[in-house]
Amino acid sequence: MSSQNLSPQQSSITALDNVRIVLVNTSHPGNIGAVARAMKNMCLSQLYLVEPQKYPHDEATWRAASAGDLLDSAVVCDSLADAISGCQLVIGTSARERTVPWPLLDPRHCMERAYKEAEASHKVAVVFGREDRGLTNEELQRCNLHVHIPANPDYSSLNIAMAVQVLSYELRMAQLSGELTSNEMAEWDVPVAGADDLERYLVHLEETLRDINFLRPEAPKKLMTRLRRLYQRTRLDEMEVNILRGILTSTQYWVRKAKLKDGDSGGDSL
Amino acid sequence: MSSQNLSPQQSSITALDNVRIVLVNTSHPGNIGAVARAMKNMCLSQLYLVEPQKYPHDEATWRAASAGDLLDSAVVCDSLADAISGCQLVIGTSARERTVPWPLLDPRHCMERAYKEAEASHKVAVVFGREDRGLTNEELQRCNLHVHIPANPDYSSLNIAMAVQVLSYELRMAQLSGELTSNEMAEWDVPVAGADDLERYLVHLEETLRDINFLRPEAPKKLMTRLRRLYQRTRLDEMEVNILRGILTSTQYWVRKAKLKDGDSGGDSL
Repeated sequence: MSSQNLSPQQSSITALDNVRIVLVNTSHPGNIGAVARAMKNMCLSQLYLVEPQKYPHDEATWRAASAGDLLDSAVVCDSLADAISGCQLVIGTSARERTVPWPLLDPRHCMERAYKEAEASHKVAVVFGREDRGLTNEELQRCNLHVHIPANPDYSSLNIAMAVQVLSYELRMAQLSGELTSNEMAEWDVPVAGADDLERYLVHLEETLRDINFLRPEAPKKLMTRLRRLYQRTRLDEMEVNILRGILTSTQYWVRKAKLKDGDSGGDSL
Repeated sequence: MSSQNLSPQQSSITALDNVRIVLVNTSHPGNIGAVARAMKNMCLSQLYLVEPQKYPHDEATWRAASAGDLLDSAVVCDSLADAISGCQLVIGTSARERTVPWPLLDPRHCMERAYKEAEASHKVAVVFGREDRGLTNEELQRCNLHVHIPANPDYSSLNIAMAVQVLSYELRMAQLSGELTSNEMAEWDVPVAGADDLERYLVHLEETLRDINFLRPEAPKKLMTRLRRLYQRTRLDEMEVNILRGILTSTQYWVRKAKLKDGDSGGDSL
């Protein structure tokens, strides 16, 4: 194990700094770079490399884009034991079938659990195997828990950097839980209109539709129902209500003007 | 738009076949290949390319690995309008800040919704922009909904194939909801031991610990509490309980044998 940077100094330590990504015996240096970028995109910082086959390497640096700092502080180890030393929770990425099954979770539940432990100051390692054949059984048996990405059974081999992206994304989602955008109008620029404003608009609309003889007394009532459903569903904001009412007022002005001129006879032609 | 393959024939159409991934004006053919692989890994099949800068290209084929069939059936279009033609739900991937905010969701909620619509036979498009500057405002305004991957605010630019991987993964998770591995012992090879078996083991353990004089009457009771907590937490399976009880029985046999020989005086030395 290289001596430097086992615990890189951080300006602000967050729970995600307690999570290390461990890559075992990676063949392609480009993948190491892509992993660094995926990690930094998701606020992870601790990269451990067990016997990388070609490292450091220009291809790693190129693929890391602006995440070169993670490569600079990466810890290169001689063994998996060194890379997971001091960790309270070790998670191995695994294909599903093993003769002796190990505790296994999907990425979401596994990373939620990993995040909770990291928040409680546990050191967590998530271990990824070789591009062509993953982790050995012996390596998997050094893990407390296995995680399996539920890929297409007919084509289940993810690129290693993609697998790191998925698990890092789930860690980031666990960090953000509670701050997520589950309400599509949560960050709207204008307040959503209240029921009273909306009702006033719909009454105004109906009145205007009568004014322009679009809504006739003998016509089926379904038209207004359909328009109500449309605007109720859209969840108008206050500014939109003002704009729509402005259009109605303007329309009414012209209709009235036209009707005054024609002595109320020309309305039907509109 | 090329004429062939607008609706590739599928042996079994699933909801995910109603979802198309649309890449607008991609620069690097390698990214197109990596997208195809990420899609196929997550059971997606419909790839649309709007004015790709270099395509077809060897780099795309190489990065696609065994997902070359998705490249072969990809639909190349002259405009975004062609690529989203016939879609009932169009989702644009977006950085957060826009002068006029659009309905915006996080990847999980957005892809759950997309999957539900696809299940109801709606055609859904998820649109990704250029590597360097994403989608234009005009393109984003052709979308019903925007999705934002909540990346590191200090380093938010994901590689486009990584972004496709994250959203495809969420679609796959939506498809699998209910089948996920949220119980880490769900696919165990041996039934988990019942409470009675576990209790019999713990009683047997306590008895054996007295036999070997490890548990003395004057000792604090905390020891058994700790051992109970250990084994309760571990959730032993039936085979493990049998193994552990076998060890105790064997231990007791030797202790009894020793005690008989020494006339019950030598027990303290064990």
